[in-house]
Formats: sequence, structure tokens, C-alpha cells
Amino acid sequence: MADYQAPLRDMRFVLNEVFKVNELWASLPRLAETVDADTADAILEEAGKIASATLAPLNREADEQGCDWNEGEVTTPHGFKEVYQLLSEGGWMGLGGNPEYGGMGMPKVLVAQFEEMIQGACMSFGLSPMLNAGACVSIDYHASEALKQKYLPNMYAGTWAGAMDLTEPHAGTDLGIIRTKAEPNADGSYNITGTKIFITWGEHDMAENIIHLVLAKLPDAPAGPKGISLFLVPKVLVNDDGSLGERNHVACGSIEKKMGIKASATCVMNFDGAKGWLVGELNQGLACMFTMMNYERVGVGIQGLGAAEASYQSAVEYARERIQSRSPAGAQNPDKAADPIIVHPDVRRMLMIQRAYNEAGRAFSTYAALWLDISKYSDEPEQKALAENMVALLTPVVKAFITDKSLESAIHGQQVFGGHGFIREWGQEQLVRDIRITQIYEGTNGIQAMDLMGRKTVMNGGEFVQQYLNEIRAFADSAKGTAAEQFVAPLMQEVSNLQDVTEAVIARAKGGDRFAVGAAAVDYLHLFGYVSYAYMWAKMVAVAGDKLAEDQSFYQAKIDTAKFFYSRLLPQTRALSAQILAGGDSLMALDAAQF
Amino acid sequence: MADYQAPLRDMRFVLNEVFKVNELWASLPRLAETVDADTADAILEEAGKIASATLAPLNREADEQGCDWNEGEVTTPHGFKEVYQLLSEGGWMGLGGNPEYGGMGMPKVLVAQFEEMIQGACMSFGLSPMLNAGACVSIDYHASEALKQKYLPNMYAGTWAGAMDLTEPHAGTDLGIIRTKAEPNADGSYNITGTKIFITWGEHDMAENIIHLVLAKLPDAPAGPKGISLFLVPKVLVNDDGSLGERNHVACGSIEKKMGIKASATCVMNFDGAKGWLVGELNQGLACMFTMMNYERVGVGIQGLGAAEASYQSAVEYARERIQSRSPAGAQNPDKAADPIIVHPDVRRMLMIQRAYNEAGRAFSTYAALWLDISKYSDEPEQKALAENMVALLTPVVKAFITDKSLESAIHGQQVFGGHGFIREWGQEQLVRDIRITQIYEGTNGIQAMDLMGRKTVMNGGEFVQQYLNEIRAFADSAKGTAAEQFVAPLMQEVSNLQDVTEAVIARAKGGDRFAVGAAAVDYLHLFGYVSYAYMWAKMVAVAGDKLAEDQSFYQAKIDTAKFFYSRLLPQTRALSAQILAGGDSLMALDAAQF
Repeated sequence: MADYQAPLRDMRFVLNEVFKVNELWASLPRLAETVDADTADAILEEAGKIASATLAPLNREADEQGCDWNEGEVTTPHGFKEVYQLLSEGGWMGLGGNPEYGGMGMPKVLVAQFEEMIQGACMSFGLSPMLNAGACVSIDYHASEALKQKYLPNMYAGTWAGAMDLTEPHAGTDLGIIRTKAEPNADGSYNITGTKIFITWGEHDMAENIIHLVLAKLPDAPAGPKGISLFLVPKVLVNDDGSLGERNHVACGSIEKKMGIKASATCVMNFDGAKGWLVGELNQGLACMFTMMNYERVGVGIQGLGAAEASYQSAVEYARERIQSRSPAGAQNPDKAADPIIVHPDVRRMLMIQRAYNEAGRAFSTYAALWLDISKYSDEPEQKALAENMVALLTPVVKAFITDKSLESAIHGQQVFGGHGFIREWGQEQLVRDIRITQIYEGTNGIQAMDLMGRKTVMNGGEFVQQYLNEIRAFADSAKGTAAEQFVAPLMQEVSNLQDVTEAVIARAKGGDRFAVGAAAVDYLHLFGYVSYAYMWAKMVAVAGDKLAEDQSFYQAKIDTAKFFYSRLLPQTRALSAQILAGGDSLMALDAAQF
Repeated sequence: MADYQAPLRDMRFVLNEVFKVNELWASLPRLAETVDADTADAILEEAGKIASATLAPLNREADEQGCDWNEGEVTTPHGFKEVYQLLSEGGWMGLGGNPEYGGMGMPKVLVAQFEEMIQGACMSFGLSPMLNAGACVSIDYHASEALKQKYLPNMYAGTWAGAMDLTEPHAGTDLGIIRTKAEPNADGSYNITGTKIFITWGEHDMAENIIHLVLAKLPDAPAGPKGISLFLVPKVLVNDDGSLGERNHVACGSIEKKMGIKASATCVMNFDGAKGWLVGELNQGLACMFTMMNYERVGVGIQGLGAAEASYQSAVEYARERIQSRSPAGAQNPDKAADPIIVHPDVRRMLMIQRAYNEAGRAFSTYAALWLDISKYSDEPEQKALAENMVALLTPVVKAFITDKSLESAIHGQQVFGGHGFIREWGQEQLVRDIRITQIYEGTNGIQAMDLMGRKTVMNGGEFVQQYLNEIRAFADSAKGTAAEQFVAPLMQEVSNLQDVTEAVIARAKGGDRFAVGAAAVDYLHLFGYVSYAYMWAKMVAVAGDKLAEDQSFYQAKIDTAKFFYSRLLPQTRALSAQILAGGDSLMALDAAQF
């Protein structure tokens, strides 16, 4: 397995050149005080070192070792505690956190790069800072001042770690039917009782305390999703002076044996009258969760991307070193028995697919993060409103499309290795196993597609899509005269096609076809994703063309990869459009018994 | 995990109704004596029982347990020895074997169904009868009469097991550079020395002896593939009276830790002056291997299919039982908290994809097996020649397209399970891990695509493709007036498009584009595969339409699944054609250093 190298050059290209984040930061008052180009650069540099030199070397062994459960205690693999400590001491656990409570207040575009590096180095470990950050967002946005003061500083410091407790054995996608109960106490706290499953890092030995955010229902709560509330339930109760008190009635019943991310603990958590405190309003638990979800879902997309980048790096190194057969153009390596396999067109095809998806994924997740930052920091109502719509629209695509394409990317990376790709010591198969979960958790990719097609598109008559397509159209106008001009016509054709398909599905749904949204959703999300990647590639080329003289090799590779994307991957939109327009009748034709 | 049930009803549909194999058998003299409808039916029934009741229950635990290596000895998981014994005693190890040496002489179309069941029940185990059968084919076709008499009866009886030893650490795809040496002895035998890797079931405790077929080179052999010979190297030497003699100098150095098929032993085999006997002519080793390869590669396609069928069965059961959220058409299960997830269009989409691919895959592998049978048993030169061309053309597609679609199918099956799909005890993730190898071994799917596009298409100017398309055209003519008529126009459009694309690639290759074949290969194989599945679905519908009155539920489901395939999957050909026609320039643009 090649050593993972944080792709800093590409990250800087996306941040500084494609999105010119410094200009944006300077325009947003609160960010202008916190971050500038030098700070950002130092953060990238340091994060890259930790990811490449400290965390990545643990990844393979940690997969073999896994976590140990013993009477409710979870022991983490070799080295995890030390990296956790290192990240905590460096302030990384609160990188995007609220400075009022000890966070570093960095914008999401920067946090996204940190996340990609950590996930690229080791997905199992990377879940820990990711979930902590998500829990902090929920607390920061919705908890009382007292709870914030009591919990956030230690969570940002990594002394305590966050966990999200949503799923129950009978309730995954359908959280409306959860059974965990919250009974009010006289002192304003609640007693939480129930069983949660699939709780990532619900228990471990890396932090002094674990702060669970738990969905539960009051005894008299309305049925369904409108009766769900969110509670903060610490593993160890915290005294008024901030010191740790008694152990709360929260216990890890077992950990799961999984396909991948084996070095992370996926816990069954039992709450047996555990003391908890309400976060946000009663029965508004799902809304409080969704604040966090936008960050978390973008984070899961980035997670897939990080691992796919690790796969690419390793596949490239193997393809350069492994010699096997001769180039169709004749021996390139005549003094050796065979040529390096990178000479073969089909090996290149696989590597080019990886590049084309990974780099577009990095640009696209950064683009979504940019809108998250604008929605959070902008004081201009119109800009803020647009940003909120863009976040709502793009989040499910970032989560699902990037993870789908990351699995595809890693499968290609594994294939480059031939038989060695199937052997554990080479590391490629682990990346496939690890990435697979990103398509499933934080809302399956099917659920993301329903969210995009239903709530974010059909329900508002396509308004958000229209706003997004207008962004692309505005870019296309500005791209005339740049190197991206060659892609403007095909991009505009895709935009117009996406608009037609969107309108067709909306019309079908409004016309009374109750299955229209579900039948179109996943193909529609993919269509949307391809158009978005085409947009990203055009944006990257527009910049790369101007800079060719500075670094021909680097920038020409961007233009060539864009050509590959447009000619060899983007045609997928033809198939997807036809599939969507074919409708859902053939899906619903069979009785359940006929399957 | 649902219990695996051998899909006998569907197999009979394909064999008896779609391909009317009985009529074919009656027309082929040697087969007419060996097999008839009743025999075939009894074989299917009995194989189904063994697969479902005896082998399938071992699959999950065997994956956890794996094989143990200890000082060269390999211990198989719990229960494997007993099933191996049961299959041996029942004559299953020689099901397709030559009756002159104790085989049962059954046609490949029937053996294919047996293979699917065994692979569907447990892929790791299923490799053992599969490799034994492959080794027997090589010996039967190429070895001397003495070797055949000495080895085949015990191999058909399962007393001895076969293994294929091709790959070396530095030579996988590129067998021309193998280093294993064969030095002639005075008695006509050879001393074999070298190291082979990735040798499936190269060592185990299920049989009394293991018969290795080893590729090696004589000291004075020509360089490259033309200097490779094939040798039979028994683990234990066999005395002239057929009894076991001394241990040969063959040893298993270690077994691999793998992503999947963990219950099979993937061995490093060390040959240290081991005694071996030439099979076939000197320096004709690759040709001897390729005889076996056509069977083996069809077998690997079937292997993927078997596991994908297991995934489908399990996903359907889960989708019927798991309740979560409400149907978009309103509550279907009003007295429960939610509806079974099979009501959701996107869950159906995943199950329909599995059905559409799996059933077409079964028909297509059976179709290829039919041509294998004709090429072997026909006495009519013209029919035999056509069959040989069809076998050559279709084999790489059966291997690569079925396994690619089987992975896709199993990923959908896993996705139906949501988070539970990632947990080992549910079994779905194992199927994904297991199927993944079928895209890699027996020639990677990229190599299959090169074979199809290069040797089987460009090199003969598209003659085989033309013959195949003529078969489809003849079917289309005959389908008028049947239920398949609705699919004739789209099928003919696909045929014509495939012809155009084929001609375009041939022209490009003949025009001097040395990368034309490699750049088009994988997309072309997929295009070819989709058209072939469209052909299979039309053939199935032509039959199903006539039988609706007999079993409405069963036959209507075929027609509905065909509609799903044509409207929701077949549009992929549009993307693939555009990608192929875009050419390979964008693949080759980057220098190796730019990756």
C-alpha cells in the first residue's frame, strides 16, 4: 500500500484558485476576523502532516485489530488514543467550533479539507472528530446557554467526545416510530430509557467522557416524527463545577461485527433511566438533528472522497511499478521483461475515472461547504437565503453522489491491482469495505435521493433547482474566452436537459402519480450529480487555462481530465434521463408475492 | 439471512421452456444416450436439496472460521469435508466428466445449473468442484491415455481433487514471463521447480490427493507465451497400481488473507523439484489451458450469478418483513406502525434490478453453455463451427458482464438492508465481498474485454459478432406474433447500434490507432452484454406470453421484469455507445508522471 499523502496541492487549487475563498472570507465580517490565507495555509500544512505521518500508518493494522468490547468497556486499536490526544491538544476537535465556547471558528471549506485528510488516512478513526463536530453543532445551535457552557468547551477540546444516538432496532430510516422514552424529573432533567443501535463511537477509551445526543419521546408526545425530542445524555454526569461526577445509566451492550470501518466501535447503547437534558424545544428533536445533518452529510460525502483519494494514490503507484505485458504501442521498457501497467489503455481508463470523480468530488464538496459558510456567516438576507436553498439542495447530492462515485472509484483502484487487490495486506480491499458504509449511514443514498427529488425539488416546484441552474448559466456566460469555453456548449445542453427532466418529474408528481418521486429519485440524483461534476470540471478548467504557463504539467492535467470526464463519463446523463422519463410503472407492476 | 433456495422453477423455465434443451439433446447423438428430461429433472432436484439443505447453512460460519494453515497442512471450515464427501459419493464431482473414465457425461447446460446452486449456497466451497472439473477438462482433452486412465477416474470420483497453478508473484495477466522450470528426467517425467501464488484450493484436507496442473517452462523453451508447457503434478505420487505412493515435492507455503471467499484456501505453492508429467504438446501449455478456460470462465460468470441470486432471495425476504415508513400511496399495513419496505418504489427498483440482471444472467450463461454443448457434441461441421465461434465470442461476456452485474445486484441487495446490510451476521455483506473476486480472477474483467474486442472481434473483422447478431435477427423474425413482439423494435435498434459501434472500432483499429481496442474494450463488453440481456429477455417473454394461462403470476412477472429491463436498464447502451465512439485520446493524454 502506498503511503497516503494529503493532496494539499489539489486542495489549494480548489480553495484558492477555483473558489478564491480568501475573497469570500474578507467579505464576511465574522470570518474576516478569524481566518486569512496564511492561517488557512498553516492549517492545511499541519493537518496534512498529522494525517500522512501519524494517522495513515495506523490504518491497516487497526482494521485487523478492530475494537474490543469487554463488559461495557471498549478498547480502541493501537495508536488511536495517541492520535486522538494529538488532535485534541492541537485544537482540531473544535476546528469549526464556536469561538465563544473555545472553538477555532474556522469556515467549513477549510474544515472540509481537514476532514478529507483525516478520512483519507483512516476512516474508522475519522468518524470520531466528525461525530464530535456534528454533536457540537447541534448543541451550539439548539441547547440552552447553560448546557453550552457546561459541555462545548470540553467537547471542542476533545476531553469529551460526542456521539449521536438515533437508530433503534426497529427504527432506522423511520425515526417516527422510535420507542426510547424520556420522563421528566422535577429538576428539569429527564430520565431516558431505551435501546439504540448502530451508535458510532458510542463508547471508547479515547476521551474522559462521551456526550450522547439522544432522540427520545415524552410519554405524552404526539405520535410519529412530531413527537421526537433531543436530549443530551453524558456517559459520566458532570458536576456544577464542571468536574466529573457519577457514572450515568448509559452502557454499551455490545459492538457490531461489520464489513468495514472495523476499527471503529459501532455500539448498542442501553439507556436505563439515564439522566438527560433537553436540547432545543420539546418535540423539535428532528429539526435540531437536521441542523447537524447538513454538516454531517457533507462530511460523509467527504469521507467517501478521502478514502477514494487514498485508493487512487495507491493505484497510481502500483500501476507505475507493476510490470506486466507490453504497451499496444510496442515495448516502453525494453530492458525489462514487461512494461509498467500504466501504459495499458484500460488501466489508464480506471485511473482516469478515479481522478475525474475524485477531483470533481473535492471541488463539489468544497462548493457545498462554501454555501454552508455563506448561509452561516452572511449578513445579507438575499445572499443568505440563496445559500440556505443551495445547502438544502446540494447536501443530499454531496452525500450520495460523492459516496456512490467514491465506491466506484475505489473498486477501480482495487481492480488495478488485479489479484493483489483482493488480498488484505495491500490495503485496497479495505478501502472498498470502508467506503461501502458511506452509502448506507446518515440516511441511505436512496433516502438522500428522495430528499432531493421530493422535499428539495417537487415540493417547491423546482425553485431551488432553478436557482442552481442559474448559477451554472451565470458561470457559463463568464467562461467565454477562457479555456472552459470548449465545455460551455455541452454543459449548457446538460443544464437544459436537467431542467426538462426536472419539469417532467414535477409534472408527473403533480399529475397524481404517487410513485413518481420514488421511482425517479436515485436516477435523478445521479443525473444531478453528473451535471454538477460537469460544472465543477468547467470551473476548474476556466482557472487552469489561465495558469498553464505557471505549471504546465499540473494545469494541463486538469484540462485533460476534464476532457476525459466530458467524453467518457458525462454520457451517462443520456441513460439516466431516459430511465427517469420511462417512469415507474414497471417498478410497481409486480405484487409483493411475485418477487 | 434468508435460507437459500435453489431457484429450480426458474432453471426449468430457462432449460425446458426457453431453450427446449430436450429437443437439442435428442438431436445430438452422444447426448441422446446420456441424458433425457427425466434424468435432468432428477439431477436438478437432488442438487437443489444438497445446495439448500446441506451446503448453504455452512456458508456464514465458514466465512468467520476460514481455513487454517499449519506447517503446510490446510484445515477446512466445519462441515466442508462432509459436503465434499457427499458430493463425491453422489458422482457430482464428475457430473460433466467423460463417461469413458467414470464421468457422468452430463451436458454443460445442466452442469451450469448445478454450479449455480452450489455457488449460490457457498462460493468458497463451490470453487472446489469447479476447479476439479476444469482440471479434468484439460486432462481429458490433452493428456495421454495413460495419464487419463491413471487420474481421471479418481478425480471424477472426488477421491482426488484438481487445482490449477498458473500465477506467479511477478506474472499474473502476463503468463509469458513465468519462471517455473520443468527439467526433463530420463523416464519421461519432469522435475518442476518454482513458486505459484493465488492457487485456489491448492492444498486442503477434503481429498486424499491433489492433482496440480502447473504451467512451467523447459530450460530451452522459447521466450514468452510460446515457451509454456502444462504439467500434471500430484501432491502424492501415484504408483503404477493406482495406489498412493510417496509425497511429491509440492508444499503449501502459506494461505492468503482475503477480502472474501475466506473459507477457501488461496495458496502459495512451492514446487521443489516436484515430479510432473507433460499434458499435451511441449510449449502448447497455454492452448491446453484455454480449452479449460472456456468452461472455467463460464463457470466464474455462473459463480457471480449464484451469489447474486442468494442476495436477491435474502433481500426480498427482508423487504417483505422489515416495516419502515408508509407507502406513498397511503398505509398498506394500517394496523402496524409502518409498511413493509417492499412498498417503496426505490426498494422495488433495487429488487427489480436484481431480478432483471440475475434472470437474464441465468438465461445468458445457459445460452453460452448450450453453444459449448453443441461445439462438443455436434457432428455437423457447420453447426459445430458456428458453435465454436459463439463460444469464443460469448465466453468473455459471460465471465465479465455477469460478474459485473452480479456485484451490482449484490450491492443493491445489501442496500435493501440499510445498516443491517453492513453487519456480518446478516450475510449480505459477505456476498458482496465474495462476488468481488469473480471480477478479478480467471482473467480480470478488463482482460476479458480485451479478448472480446481484440481477438474475438477486431482480429476477425467482426465476423463472430455478425454471426451472433444474425442469430438475434433470426429470433426477432420468429418473435412476431408472440408477446415478445413489443420488444422486437427496440431490440433491433440495439442490434443495429451494436453493429455500427463494432464497425467504428474495427475501422479505428485498422486505421492505425493502436489504443483503439484497449480504450473501447470494457465499455464495448458492457454494450455487448446489455444487448445480450435484451435478447435473453425477449426470448423469455416470447415463451412466457404463450404460457400465461398456465401460471399467470409466474409468467406475467417475466413480462413485467422484461419491461423494467427495457425501460430502466437498457438505456445504458446510449451512454456506452457515446463513450466508445468518443475514442481513447483523453485516456492517453497524461504522462505517467502526471497521475
